[in-house]
Amino acid sequence: MLDQIRIILVNTTHPGNIGAVARAMKNMGLADLCLVAPKRFPDPEADARASGATDILASATLVDSLEDAIADCHLVVGTSARGRHIPWPIMNPRELAGVVGKVASETRVAIVFGREDRGLTNEELHRCHHHVQIPTNPDFSSLNVAAAVQVIAYELRMLHESLDEPSAPKWGTQWDIELAQAKELELLFEHLEKTLVDIEFLDPGNPRQLMTRLRRLFLRAVPDKVEVNVLRGILSSVDVVVGKDHPKKG
Amino acid sequence: MLDQIRIILVNTTHPGNIGAVARAMKNMGLADLCLVAPKRFPDPEADARASGATDILASATLVDSLEDAIADCHLVVGTSARGRHIPWPIMNPRELAGVVGKVASETRVAIVFGREDRGLTNEELHRCHHHVQIPTNPDFSSLNVAAAVQVIAYELRMLHESLDEPSAPKWGTQWDIELAQAKELELLFEHLEKTLVDIEFLDPGNPRQLMTRLRRLFLRAVPDKVEVNVLRGILSSVDVVVGKDHPKKG
Repeated sequence: MLDQIRIILVNTTHPGNIGAVARAMKNMGLADLCLVAPKRFPDPEADARASGATDILASATLVDSLEDAIADCHLVVGTSARGRHIPWPIMNPRELAGVVGKVASETRVAIVFGREDRGLTNEELHRCHHHVQIPTNPDFSSLNVAAAVQVIAYELRMLHESLDEPSAPKWGTQWDIELAQAKELELLFEHLEKTLVDIEFLDPGNPRQLMTRLRRLFLRAVPDKVEVNVLRGILSSVDVVVGKDHPKKG
Repeated sequence: MLDQIRIILVNTTHPGNIGAVARAMKNMGLADLCLVAPKRFPDPEADARASGATDILASATLVDSLEDAIADCHLVVGTSARGRHIPWPIMNPRELAGVVGKVASETRVAIVFGREDRGLTNEELHRCHHHVQIPTNPDFSSLNVAAAVQVIAYELRMLHESLDEPSAPKWGTQWDIELAQAKELELLFEHLEKTLVDIEFLDPGNPRQLMTRLRRLFLRAVPDKVEVNVLRGILSSVDVVVGKDHPKKG
């Protein structure tokens, strides 16, 4: 899917922005960059801001007009700030990703970004099938062009990963240890309660909500087996100090 | 919701990145920027890249340590690249927005971004309740810090706009007690460590991963103030038994 996407920058003024776009694209797994009549390119400032994504810059295509840039594309999406007068099918970046996710595998999709100071002209926008708007603070709505590419490329990446991985991982790596079973947790809570009585923190005649609060706290964290063993080990060390070493159960 | 969010940049090297972060924040409606020991700030390059968001720079707070930056926050989220050794609760930016959407209106949320070249240290990451990872191309995963702020701020903006809509989904019930602040949690971990040394469960000469595991367990549960008080009370009772009643701090 990601290799069906072409990012097109129209009349970019600052080469640093082109470099930052290349970096954002490569970070998100996009590779097809097309530059329509950039003011300065190639340029060392573009290379510097690309920060390792210079391959994207080296393989970028340069063309004279938007027409040339989109000629072989099947679906063209223009980015637009708020407040255009002409009604046009408009989407946010997430909806765009939804549309891109549904196109056929032969469909080439162009996403077009305008000039730093005034975006795309109405004529350019009218070449687009859809317009996409990034939601912004209405009092300060002009995004840097690389920031706009970053947001849209991120949505495409999210789509890509959801296609690749039906069940997204919940932890940074696979959790390394099996979760504790209910019976182990019950033994932990039993042990905890006895020790709290022994150190006279818990008054068995007036237990109030103490164990309930502690249960809620630990259960919320969904402890694994090693964590439960660590906690039981701490309790056993306290038991030794207080002189009431309980025989270990479980 | 957006005014409960603090963006924290740790040891930023390039002032241009700080300016770009300010612009991304203002574009998405965020205002609270905190800089931990930036290399150069204020700086004309930061102003230039802020491109009209200089009010965010002018009101930014400067502090010496991450500890100071997060002291009054209730929920601390660290941004992390792939491949950390110890698994920690990890989310993507959309899941983070979901979590932020559920917190109480008094909850202050810190989102912490690391250095350009090597991100956050493990010690810094271990001060966080959750870690957030932006999905990337595994072969080129290092995002520019302003690009990372842009993506996360965009997700928060999407959440914000969906909350404004009458059809917005309602989030879960509100917690009954204020969440603990980072400084309270640090005092808890300090107290816990001392007590574990006193009962000879923790060998200061060979601490291994014990405190890291315990931090991960407790931070995962995002404890409230009463729970922290209960845990400190338990530790104080143990201190009395072991004859090392530490003077209470905090």
